[in-house]
Amino acid sequence: MKNKEELWVLKVGGKVLEDEMALATFLDQLATSGKRFILVHGGGKHASALAEKLGIPQQMVDGRRITDEATLELALMSYAGLLNKKVVAQLQGRGINAVGLSGADGNTVPAMKRPVGDIDYGWVGDPIPGEVNKLFLLTLLHGNLSPVFCALTHDKMGHMLNTNADTMAQTLAIAMSHHYRVKLLYLFEKKGVLRDLDREDSLIPLIRRTDIQALSDTGVISEGMLPKLQNAAKAVEAGVEAVLIGAASQLPHILSDEAESATHVID
Amino acid sequence: MKNKEELWVLKVGGKVLEDEMALATFLDQLATSGKRFILVHGGGKHASALAEKLGIPQQMVDGRRITDEATLELALMSYAGLLNKKVVAQLQGRGINAVGLSGADGNTVPAMKRPVGDIDYGWVGDPIPGEVNKLFLLTLLHGNLSPVFCALTHDKMGHMLNTNADTMAQTLAIAMSHHYRVKLLYLFEKKGVLRDLDREDSLIPLIRRTDIQALSDTGVISEGMLPKLQNAAKAVEAGVEAVLIGAASQLPHILSDEAESATHVID
Repeated sequence: MKNKEELWVLKVGGKVLEDEMALATFLDQLATSGKRFILVHGGGKHASALAEKLGIPQQMVDGRRITDEATLELALMSYAGLLNKKVVAQLQGRGINAVGLSGADGNTVPAMKRPVGDIDYGWVGDPIPGEVNKLFLLTLLHGNLSPVFCALTHDKMGHMLNTNADTMAQTLAIAMSHHYRVKLLYLFEKKGVLRDLDREDSLIPLIRRTDIQALSDTGVISEGMLPKLQNAAKAVEAGVEAVLIGAASQLPHILSDEAESATHVID
Repeated sequence: MKNKEELWVLKVGGKVLEDEMALATFLDQLATSGKRFILVHGGGKHASALAEKLGIPQQMVDGRRITDEATLELALMSYAGLLNKKVVAQLQGRGINAVGLSGADGNTVPAMKRPVGDIDYGWVGDPIPGEVNKLFLLTLLHGNLSPVFCALTHDKMGHMLNTNADTMAQTLAIAMSHHYRVKLLYLFEKKGVLRDLDREDSLIPLIRRTDIQALSDTGVISEGMLPKLQNAAKAVEAGVEAVLIGAASQLPHILSDEAESATHVID
């Protein structure tokens, strides 16, 4: 196990992508880190702004976008088109041989359209973990290419599906964990999981998978953080070495494994 | 030379892409042909429609789109996003392991921003033929992946560039011609190069590269066709086995090398 190479799977949210300066800094730091990586990006805000300009009404349920045909087209334009190619070109400009992908490209991440229950999410899909095209991803990584994923998948029957970016990153991290020592990094605005949301110095540096339920029950971790931690728990249980939750602004410190630079979730 | 494998580089225009039925038929025929291929697609009409909806004025000079920043964003959304992923997902649905790419992805097609002369085309680029990332393309093709290119490239300095789709296809065809017997197929509305534009039965089945100038001088070929033929001439001169110019509706006949199914341009 020790001689497996390290691989970082980073998920970055829309806020960094939409701020030109923040994006440039983030990509500079990533490019100069020398780390082998897969990048997964979100990008909800650009799609929302485009929806407004085009007069396409958007419906959110529990923070999830109901994806009708017109909204799927927005997602394709925004995530797979504008944002993905912007990131790829900028990484190329920094000497990183990036290749932009959706889960349909190379059949990398096949998904299942979410069944209609109380809510019909429309063209939303959940990755089928066992079906990730590992061979293709390994071929890219061995060829020193850096995959850059938008959070879109496909149903293998001709239709694209909108997918949660955290889940996309987790799926890719788990799939690669047999071949690499994978660190999955969720970047957001806060420094990590905080005991007190208003105090950055209240960082919880280490959380064991088995502690998550207790931390939730005792109210130490906020309701908004729970899905991310559950996601993280699943990843480390399935073989990912560690899941890190931290701030994009701390990237160099996180990538060089500095203490207290983010919250580490381990098995 | 004889034992090189055959590779088709097909360029399909916007009209087929925007007609759901025509696209489905085209992809059915391509998927069942069993041919190894690289597909290059245009898509100007969707971008134009989007420009109108978003109130972004479009300026065309000699049929070429002046590409300011807003127009480049339209191209990214439309070509690299919506159209590219639609085609990839539909090919996947037909059992073809397609991977959608721009020239920035994997640094496949680096380009040079067109110098500002009498006209400033903006973010428009012309591919640098010697710099195509052949190794990456060969890796994909050997892995039974089918690259699907939109006509966008990059300047290797962080910026995407709008590129002519015919030129993109020609560049890829030439780059692959050392490794495959490449047939470059330009699909459009007519059956091929016609002596009389109104009569499909006036097809010129074979044109030698060295005949093009005379055909142009004597007015046999129309002004609109000349750039395509010059493009074709350059391709066959550089090692592409044949350039075929024909109608998307004739695809099965063309792919099975039926006589009079398209115009063949050879060296």
